[in-house]
Amino acid sequence: MSTTGKVIKCKAAVAWGPSQPLSIEEVEVAPPREKEVRLQILATGVCHTDAYRLSGIDPEGSDWPVILGHEGGGIVESVGEGVTSVQPGDHVIPLYTPECRKCKFCTSGKTNLCSSVRSTQVRGLMPDEETRFTCKGKKVYHFMGCSTFSQYTVVLEISVARINPVAPLDKVCLLGCGITTGYGAAVRTADVQPGSSVAVFGCGGVGLSVILGAKARNASQIIAVDKNPQKFEYAKKLGATSCINPDDYDIPIQQVLIEMTDGGLDYTFDATGNTKAMRAALESCIRGWGQSVIIGVAGAGEEISTRPFQLVTGRTWKGTAFGGIKGRSELPGLVEDYLNKKLEIDMFVTHKFNLEEINKAFEIMHDGDGIRSIIYFD
Amino acid sequence: MSTTGKVIKCKAAVAWGPSQPLSIEEVEVAPPREKEVRLQILATGVCHTDAYRLSGIDPEGSDWPVILGHEGGGIVESVGEGVTSVQPGDHVIPLYTPECRKCKFCTSGKTNLCSSVRSTQVRGLMPDEETRFTCKGKKVYHFMGCSTFSQYTVVLEISVARINPVAPLDKVCLLGCGITTGYGAAVRTADVQPGSSVAVFGCGGVGLSVILGAKARNASQIIAVDKNPQKFEYAKKLGATSCINPDDYDIPIQQVLIEMTDGGLDYTFDATGNTKAMRAALESCIRGWGQSVIIGVAGAGEEISTRPFQLVTGRTWKGTAFGGIKGRSELPGLVEDYLNKKLEIDMFVTHKFNLEEINKAFEIMHDGDGIRSIIYFD
Repeated sequence: MSTTGKVIKCKAAVAWGPSQPLSIEEVEVAPPREKEVRLQILATGVCHTDAYRLSGIDPEGSDWPVILGHEGGGIVESVGEGVTSVQPGDHVIPLYTPECRKCKFCTSGKTNLCSSVRSTQVRGLMPDEETRFTCKGKKVYHFMGCSTFSQYTVVLEISVARINPVAPLDKVCLLGCGITTGYGAAVRTADVQPGSSVAVFGCGGVGLSVILGAKARNASQIIAVDKNPQKFEYAKKLGATSCINPDDYDIPIQQVLIEMTDGGLDYTFDATGNTKAMRAALESCIRGWGQSVIIGVAGAGEEISTRPFQLVTGRTWKGTAFGGIKGRSELPGLVEDYLNKKLEIDMFVTHKFNLEEINKAFEIMHDGDGIRSIIYFD
Repeated sequence: MSTTGKVIKCKAAVAWGPSQPLSIEEVEVAPPREKEVRLQILATGVCHTDAYRLSGIDPEGSDWPVILGHEGGGIVESVGEGVTSVQPGDHVIPLYTPECRKCKFCTSGKTNLCSSVRSTQVRGLMPDEETRFTCKGKKVYHFMGCSTFSQYTVVLEISVARINPVAPLDKVCLLGCGITTGYGAAVRTADVQPGSSVAVFGCGGVGLSVILGAKARNASQIIAVDKNPQKFEYAKKLGATSCINPDDYDIPIQQVLIEMTDGGLDYTFDATGNTKAMRAALESCIRGWGQSVIIGVAGAGEEISTRPFQLVTGRTWKGTAFGGIKGRSELPGLVEDYLNKKLEIDMFVTHKFNLEEINKAFEIMHDGDGIRSIIYFD
């Protein structure tokens, strides 16, 4: 019996308020409107950005309740009017950075930061200023244009990447955020060159993906920096040539790194979200050409700082969102790379849970245990 | 009668201590040693960096007394042993950023920041840890490897650019710092593209030279920002398409600029040395690809800061020293550009003084009057 055009009742993990455990509820998901797509989500990762939003300190968030999740894999259930690029049955990855291919950012050839629906997406709304979720008679907000913690979700056509249906959605869903972000930071934003030296601050899913990218680019030295030495096992497996813990030294970590590398690194990456680490990453770069890329999301109101002399002597400070990757155009290629065994994903999946156990995935993430949890919907 | 191999007695402006007026003295200039060159300086500019060093707050400076000046034009009087690239009679511009062509920075192809003699130059010494100046029996320190406020000076062979002798030294001496720094920041460090939008914070000699570079690159919008509207006349002559004074607005200048440019500028430059202006310059850039270049030298211990979100959303923060230009290799070409009327210099010379009047040049600079003063030695 077709569900097209009808409201779908399904399970979702609903966040009713800040710092409360997610609650598994039956929600109603409205049919997709013009240029929208309704997806059945088969699997989703859990990311620090979900936890950050749940904490309530994100100054840009919508009101509550909200359905979090932005690292999903799904199948198109139905499409709204005017949708031409996907059809029911297509396998897709939802995109928190859409790609309209029309705005001045999309057409610039210089950035992946499509601006077409930013003003509503950040407020948890679809472009018509409404939401497609209801729970217990209450409007439920979207999150990052994805809301993958629901068995069904509605997203914009410009916010899905159609991928090879052969790919396992419970693996490639991680390309929806963490892996693409870190990998892209290395191969796209920084454009790491062969033979160069790289340091990665923070060895969570994103930091480890930077290592993956640096290794793919044949960096000769890849230094993993983390205060949790349990992460080093993964870092080494993925290509780190050495691993250091700032707590093992009495001097600032930038000084340690500068000494280790005869003057500093060609590229450094911050995947911690800690503004002090961001500064240390910049100051670990070599004068003349060192580049430091900020990937982590800092706490509300926090600022980075350094002496301007650091930049005047040739260091560059930049950042990246979604690794500089254009989702609709480029994510399908990363999925192919995975299928062709050119891109590691499997090792990132260290835990698996059913939707009902999703709060455990948050706990594990807070504890810094493992890399990524995958949530299944059946 | 040849002076080769002999001590030369000549006039110099000596700085005996912090914040004291320069004193015109007879100094003794030793002959050049191995790989060194003795120059007769015919003309020199006066730059804010000289004033900064004279103020005594520069944490990296040498002891006193010192002979300042780093924007000079001169003729080789004699050369030390092993000097092969210049000979007596050659016209040269001394370089505070040397070019040894051997160190890992020079050979990287990525930076002009030669590191070969940094450790002694910053302490006002030649590589043998001595100085070549004496005054009243006292050792006098060098400054930035140049010390152009002396009729004769000794510099390293790697610290002179040999130029076309047809060029008037009392004009092209300004390529020794200010003009090259600003022009290079635009055409080299930022690599301003045709049709792009540019804002320049600070319209002193360096900022005006950024305008020159942006215009040379056919930027379509060049906005000059200064709190001294007297500077706008020069800015417009050199190519600024609009001029704004932050004091004319009740809102932050970055907001003004973002509104003027439909989202922000492609390139911004700070030539003020003020860390708040550096932040404003960064935050005036467009998300996705805006680049901000710090040129100004900030006060000791001052720091720049911003929210990391500014970088994560695609802005790049960088800096430049001597405009990214390699002095020995590239300055001769800029001199040719001047001779071929492709590069404006004459307009920058707004005042002329004899060496005896050099303190007037500092006063004028402090008052923000004019652009550059040229000091003559006869």
